[in-house]
Amino acid sequence: MTKAFVFDAYGTLFDVQSVADATEAAFPGHGDIITQIWRMKQLEYSWLRSLMGAYEDFWAVTRQSLAYTLGVLGLEASPALIDEIAETYNSLTPYPEAEAALAALSAYPRAILSNGSPAMLDALVGRSPLAPHIGAILSVDAAGAFKPDPRAYALVEARLGVKPADVVFVSANGFDIAGAKRFGFRVARIARVPAAAVRAEIGKAAQAGLLPPATFYKALRTQLEGLGFAPDFEVASLSELARLPGIAPAAH
Amino acid sequence: MTKAFVFDAYGTLFDVQSVADATEAAFPGHGDIITQIWRMKQLEYSWLRSLMGAYEDFWAVTRQSLAYTLGVLGLEASPALIDEIAETYNSLTPYPEAEAALAALSAYPRAILSNGSPAMLDALVGRSPLAPHIGAILSVDAAGAFKPDPRAYALVEARLGVKPADVVFVSANGFDIAGAKRFGFRVARIARVPAAAVRAEIGKAAQAGLLPPATFYKALRTQLEGLGFAPDFEVASLSELARLPGIAPAAH
Repeated sequence: MTKAFVFDAYGTLFDVQSVADATEAAFPGHGDIITQIWRMKQLEYSWLRSLMGAYEDFWAVTRQSLAYTLGVLGLEASPALIDEIAETYNSLTPYPEAEAALAALSAYPRAILSNGSPAMLDALVGRSPLAPHIGAILSVDAAGAFKPDPRAYALVEARLGVKPADVVFVSANGFDIAGAKRFGFRVARIARVPAAAVRAEIGKAAQAGLLPPATFYKALRTQLEGLGFAPDFEVASLSELARLPGIAPAAH
Repeated sequence: MTKAFVFDAYGTLFDVQSVADATEAAFPGHGDIITQIWRMKQLEYSWLRSLMGAYEDFWAVTRQSLAYTLGVLGLEASPALIDEIAETYNSLTPYPEAEAALAALSAYPRAILSNGSPAMLDALVGRSPLAPHIGAILSVDAAGAFKPDPRAYALVEARLGVKPADVVFVSANGFDIAGAKRFGFRVARIARVPAAAVRAEIGKAAQAGLLPPATFYKALRTQLEGLGFAPDFEVASLSELARLPGIAPAAH
């Protein structure tokens, strides 16, 4: 029985691609490649730090992955500029349907479980119109491990007192969908980039042997992973969550 | 004091790019993009499975990541074709200098510690001219976790009886270099793709906003990671290992 909705933040409620203006402004002509490599490495570093037992918080990971990205491209940046660009992660644009979709689920407690550090999440959510619709903001920082480590997902029951089977966990990130399902949540996937769209985009580009970085990113990180943990529900946007079977209408 | 050399296999002794002929033969015009996405996902899946506590061996991971890759590209393949292509991982080409470089270190025990399953590694090494120069072949399968999980690296002392500080661990993979250093080995990085070469390759392509998949791969997976664990030595090829400070000449 559904007793709570728990949302991933980056890529699910907030559009990580909205850093593109800042990366392009800082390094004209390099915005797309910075944006894509940065996001790829940001997640890689979160996984590797968890695996190595060398946790640092997501603010450190976000800056370190940006520094890697600029380094590999041969772009010079002061620590102050790195901080300034990284800071855009604290004011990402919410997806257009997010506010109304959260409001439509008001019969339920709605929480965020995110890799972001507490300070990052407080800034991100606090500055956004989503704030009134979110109860608890859970940062994996309290567990000292990033998703999909089960210690991160265990924070939900510890903090909200809701058993995994009574949670609908909502994410657009393939690794997070697999990890949440493995952990025991019911999982709703937001399929923001349809498989057919990725195929069409790659198909055209692959003929020439050349791809825009954003296309490569979409192929690698926006699709359902082949890890054997399929979501319970798949919807095209957050708006459809309120229409899932058995979901109560919004409180008035 | 150096008492043993332990080598990573995939990308360090054996060229993972040598699957390109097989991927191109199976899907003409798509060889490069298959090769790059496959290798990216193969490692991602090894990390994610370790993190989620859902270990399956590297043969499963290799097939699952290949199936993902073909799926995202909209290419159809039977399970038999997937097995056939995946099988190329068991006959990768050794780097040209590998055999002589191992021979030059004959004063030391030389072992492999690899993500590969025991069957994959037996096939790969057994079919190669490197076999006479390798003593122990250690698969992380015995630990049930992939590198850079410390449980994987702990197999070296458990099996060879050599303390981490007395091991020179050799890898070309950034995540592996960081993990091995974090674990306590002395680490030699094989810098197969110089930073300047990646910058030049990307610089040219990024102007047009389009990259060959191999260039994107190089930017993401061939450079030193920004995780704060630097190797003790950095050399351009395996041949230089015998010339590191304090290394004994080859036995005759």
